[in-house]
Amino acid sequence: MSKPQYTLGEIAHHLGATVKYKDESASTASLNRVISGIATLTSAKEDEISFLSNSKYEKFLSNTRAAAVILAPEQVPYCLVDALVLSDPYLGYAKAAQLFDLAPSPSPGIHPTAVIGEDCHVADTASIGAYVVLGRGVSVGERTVIHPHVVLSDHVSIGNDCILYPQVSLYHHVSLGNGVIIHGGAVIGADGFGMARNEKGEWIKIPQLGTVEIQDQVEIGANTTIDRGALENTIIEKGVKLDNQIQIGHNVVLGENTAIAACTGISGSTKIGKNCMISGMVGFAGHLEIADGTIITGMTKVTKSIKKRGVYSSGTGIEPHETWLKNAVRFRQLEDMMQRLASLEKTKDELTK
Amino acid sequence: MSKPQYTLGEIAHHLGATVKYKDESASTASLNRVISGIATLTSAKEDEISFLSNSKYEKFLSNTRAAAVILAPEQVPYCLVDALVLSDPYLGYAKAAQLFDLAPSPSPGIHPTAVIGEDCHVADTASIGAYVVLGRGVSVGERTVIHPHVVLSDHVSIGNDCILYPQVSLYHHVSLGNGVIIHGGAVIGADGFGMARNEKGEWIKIPQLGTVEIQDQVEIGANTTIDRGALENTIIEKGVKLDNQIQIGHNVVLGENTAIAACTGISGSTKIGKNCMISGMVGFAGHLEIADGTIITGMTKVTKSIKKRGVYSSGTGIEPHETWLKNAVRFRQLEDMMQRLASLEKTKDELTK
Amino acid sequence: MSKPQYTLGEIAHHLGATVKYKDESASTASLNRVISGIATLTSAKEDEISFLSNSKYEKFLSNTRAAAVILAPEQVPYCLVDALVLSDPYLGYAKAAQLFDLAPSPSPGIHPTAVIGEDCHVADTASIGAYVVLGRGVSVGERTVIHPHVVLSDHVSIGNDCILYPQVSLYHHVSLGNGVIIHGGAVIGADGFGMARNEKGEWIKIPQLGTVEIQDQVEIGANTTIDRGALENTIIEKGVKLDNQIQIGHNVVLGENTAIAACTGISGSTKIGKNCMISGMVGFAGHLEIADGTIITGMTKVTKSIKKRGVYSSGTGIEPHETWLKNAVRFRQLEDMMQRLASLEKTKDELTK
Repeated sequence: MSKPQYTLGEIAHHLGATVKYKDESASTASLNRVISGIATLTSAKEDEISFLSNSKYEKFLSNTRAAAVILAPEQVPYCLVDALVLSDPYLGYAKAAQLFDLAPSPSPGIHPTAVIGEDCHVADTASIGAYVVLGRGVSVGERTVIHPHVVLSDHVSIGNDCILYPQVSLYHHVSLGNGVIIHGGAVIGADGFGMARNEKGEWIKIPQLGTVEIQDQVEIGANTTIDRGALENTIIEKGVKLDNQIQIGHNVVLGENTAIAACTGISGSTKIGKNCMISGMVGFAGHLEIADGTIITGMTKVTKSIKKRGVYSSGTGIEPHETWLKNAVRFRQLEDMMQRLASLEKTKDELTK
Repeated sequence: MSKPQYTLGEIAHHLGATVKYKDESASTASLNRVISGIATLTSAKEDEISFLSNSKYEKFLSNTRAAAVILAPEQVPYCLVDALVLSDPYLGYAKAAQLFDLAPSPSPGIHPTAVIGEDCHVADTASIGAYVVLGRGVSVGERTVIHPHVVLSDHVSIGNDCILYPQVSLYHHVSLGNGVIIHGGAVIGADGFGMARNEKGEWIKIPQLGTVEIQDQVEIGANTTIDRGALENTIIEKGVKLDNQIQIGHNVVLGENTAIAACTGISGSTKIGKNCMISGMVGFAGHLEIADGTIITGMTKVTKSIKKRGVYSSGTGIEPHETWLKNAVRFRQLEDMMQRLASLEKTKDELTK
Repeated sequence: MSKPQYTLGEIAHHLGATVKYKDESASTASLNRVISGIATLTSAKEDEISFLSNSKYEKFLSNTRAAAVILAPEQVPYCLVDALVLSDPYLGYAKAAQLFDLAPSPSPGIHPTAVIGEDCHVADTASIGAYVVLGRGVSVGERTVIHPHVVLSDHVSIGNDCILYPQVSLYHHVSLGNGVIIHGGAVIGADGFGMARNEKGEWIKIPQLGTVEIQDQVEIGANTTIDRGALENTIIEKGVKLDNQIQIGHNVVLGENTAIAACTGISGSTKIGKNCMISGMVGFAGHLEIADGTIITGMTKVTKSIKKRGVYSSGTGIEPHETWLKNAVRFRQLEDMMQRLASLEKTKDELTK
C-alpha cells in the first residue's frame, strides 16, 4: 500500500494557508517539494510537515527537520523552515492529516456473502462488506460504507456518507442521518433498562417501544452503547462526538456538538445541552437537565441538574494510600467535626465577649 | 410493518383492569375503540392509551388526549377520559407495552448460512439466524431465538424461550436457563483475570476451569461481560437483571432478582445477595459479601462487605470546579484538621474548667 | 468431551514439585494415582488435587479429601495427604490448572467460509475459524488461532501462538507480537478521540494516522478497546495483562508486565511504567507519566503524574446513605471549616499567650 504524497503547494492550497518561505528565492522549489506525511516537530523527517498549535512545544520549533510547519502568524519569526501560516494551526493539522490517512476505502458494491432482507434499498455507491446482514426494509444511502460483520436489523435507516466499522449492531428502526461514523462493536438501539416489579418481587420487562435517532455528523466510539427509548426516542443531535465505551440510557437527549470522553455513563431521560464538554468516566443520574456549554471534569458524579454553564467537579484528589486511609476515615466524621467546630466557636464567643 | 392494534376492551382484559367509563352510556363504544399505541400523558393521541404511576405527572392527567389512562383507584376522580383501573399502574404499563412491541420475531428454523458443529441439538421451534456459529455439542431449546452473528462455543447449553441478540458470544460450557435475554455484544464466559507471578516477575496465566451458569429469566445488557470461574462457576441466579456494560469477575454470585444498572463492575469472588438494587458505575472490590436487599447509589466504591441491608453511598457531591479544587485540597488535610480540632478542644477544656 | 487425566507422578513432574508422601511405603501407588482435576481444599474430591497458597485457607488443609495438595515446605507437617512441595504454590496451581483446561483447541486450517483478502500470508499451522474476514496484506503466524467472526482489516500483522476469540476486531495496520491473547469483542485500533473546532463551533475530525503495536505475551480482556495513535503509535509492551472493558486512549504507552483490572480508562498520551498494578475502574487524565512499580487502588482518580512508586488512592469510603449525605455536604464546606479552625487557633494563641 503506497503512502499518499502531495507537493507542499498542494497542501498549502488544501489548507488555505499562506506560505512564508524560509528562502523567498527558492519558493518554486519549495512549492514543488514532495511531502509524504505529517509528524510532530521532534519526529518529522525532511519529507514531512509538522504543526505548532500548543505553546508548550514552541521550544521544538527551531530544531525541527520538517519540510514545513503549520503555525500561527506570530510564530513565523521563530520558524527556520518554510511555514504554512493559518490563524488556527490545530484546525490546519486536522485538515492536513486528512490527506495522509491510510484507512482503507472499500469499493462500492455489495459483497456476495452479504445477506440482504426483503424491501431493502441500498444505494449503488454504497459499500456493503462481507457477512453484513440487513433485515427487512433497511435503507443505506449514497457512498455509505458498511464494514464486514455489521448487523442492521429491520427497518434501520442510514443516510449518506456514513461509515459503520466491523461488528456494529443496530437494532430495529434505528435511524442515522448523513456523515455518521460508528466504530467497532457499538450497539445502538438495545432495550433500555426498564422493568416493573410484580407482587412476587419479580421484575417484569417493560418493552422499549421507542428507538434511537442519530442526527448528521455524529461520531460514536468503539463498544459504546445507546439504548432505545421506552416510549419516545433517544436522540443524539447533530455533530455530537462520543468516545469509546460510553453508555447512553433510554430517552437521553444529547444536544448539538456536545463531546463526551470515554467510559461516561448517562442514565435514562437525562438531557444534556448543546456544546457541552464531558470528560471521561463521568456518571449522570437520570432525569437531569444540563445547561448548554457545561464542562464536567473526569469521574464527576452528577446527581443534580446544572442550570448555569460552568466547570463542575466532584471527588477527591489522588494521594498516597496511607494518608488517604486516614483522611477517608475523617470524611465519615465530617458532620461531627463541624458540630465540634461550631461548639468551639460558641465557647470562643463566650470567652472573648 | 403494520403497527399492532387492539380494542380498549382487549387491552383491559389483557391487563386484568377494571374499566371506569368517562360516559357510562357509551361503554360499548369505549370498549370497541381501536387503540394503536401507548404514550405519555402529554404526548398520547386519541387512539393511544397512557398511564399514571408517578404522582409527579398527576398534573398532566386532566389535559391528556389519550383514549384511556391506566391508573390507580384513587386517581379515578381526576380522570376525564376512560380509566383502566389497577392497583399497580406501572406494572399495568409494562403489560400494555408488551402488546405494542415492534421488535422483530424471527421465524423458527436454521438459516442456511449458520454453521452447526457436531452433536448439536437445536429444537425445531428455535430460530437460528444468519452466520450464527455453533461449536460441538451445543443445545438450543424450544422457541429460543438466536439472532445473526451469535457465536456459541463448544458445549454451550441454552434453555427455552431465550433471545440472544446479534454478536453475543458465549465461550465453551456456558449454560443458560429458560427465558434468558442477552443483548448485543455481550461476552459470557471469557477467562477470569487470574495469573501468578514467576521468579522473573512475569505473569503466568491461570487457566479458568470453571464456567458461567445463568439461571432462568435473567436479562443481560449490551456489551456486558461475565467471566468464567477459576475453579468453580460464576453464577447469575434466577431473575437477575443486568444493564449494559457491566463487568462481572470470576466466581461472582449474583442473588435472585438483584438488578444492577449500567457500567458497574464487580471484582472476583464477591457475592451479592438477593433483591439488591445496585446503581450505575458502582465498583466492588473482590471477596465481599453483600446482604440481601441492599441498595447502593451510583458511583459508590464498595471496599468492604455489607452485613446489614440499607442504602449505601460514597464519594462527594458535584460542585463548581473552583470551589471543588479548594475543598479537595482540604480533604487531604482532614487528618491534620482533626488533630488541630482535638487540640483546641483540649485548650477549651483547660480554659473553661 | 472427556476430561484430561494424569497420574500424580506426571503432575509432580510437570510442576517440578517434590512429592512428600503421606505414607512412604505406598509411594508407587501414590505416583500412579489417576488425577482428573484441581479444586479448592474444601471442594476437592479424592481424584483431584488442591493447593494452599493463602494462609487464610490453612484451616481447611487438615480436612481436605484431595489426593494431594500443592503447598510450601513449611506446610508439609500439617498436610495429612500427599503433598506436592513447591516454594511458590500459587505458581504451581497456575501450572497445574493448565493441565486440566477444557478450552477447545481448533484444528489448523482455514474454514471454507473465511474470506481472505489479497496478499495475505497465513501459516499452515494457524487455525482460521468460520466467517473470519481478513483484509488485504494480513499475516497470521504459526499455531495462531483465530476464532469465528474475527475481523482483521488491511495490513494487520499477527505473530505466532496468538489466540483471538470470537468477534475481536483489529483495524488496519495493527500489529501483534507472539503469544498474544485477545478476548471476545475487543476492538483494537479504532480512531483515537481527536478533533479540532472550526470557526462555527463544529468538531472537525483529526484522522488518526498512527496504529497500535502490541508486543509479546500481552493478554487483552473482553470488550476492551485500544485506540490507534494520532501521529505515532499506541504501544502495549511485552507481558502487559489487561482485564475486560478497559479503555486505552491514543498514544498511551503501557510498560512491560503492567497489569490493569477491569473498567479502567486511560486518557490519551499517558505513559504507565513497567510492573505497575492498576485496580479496577481507575481513571487517568491524559499526558501523565506514572512511575514503574506504582500500585493504584480501585476507582482512584489520577489527575497528575506519579514520580515515586508507591500505593495511591482517592475517593471516600462507603457509608450509610443518610450519614453520607451529611458528610458530603460538609465536604463542600471544607475550605470554610479550615478558615474557621485557623481563626479559632488564632484566638487560642491570644487567649493563652
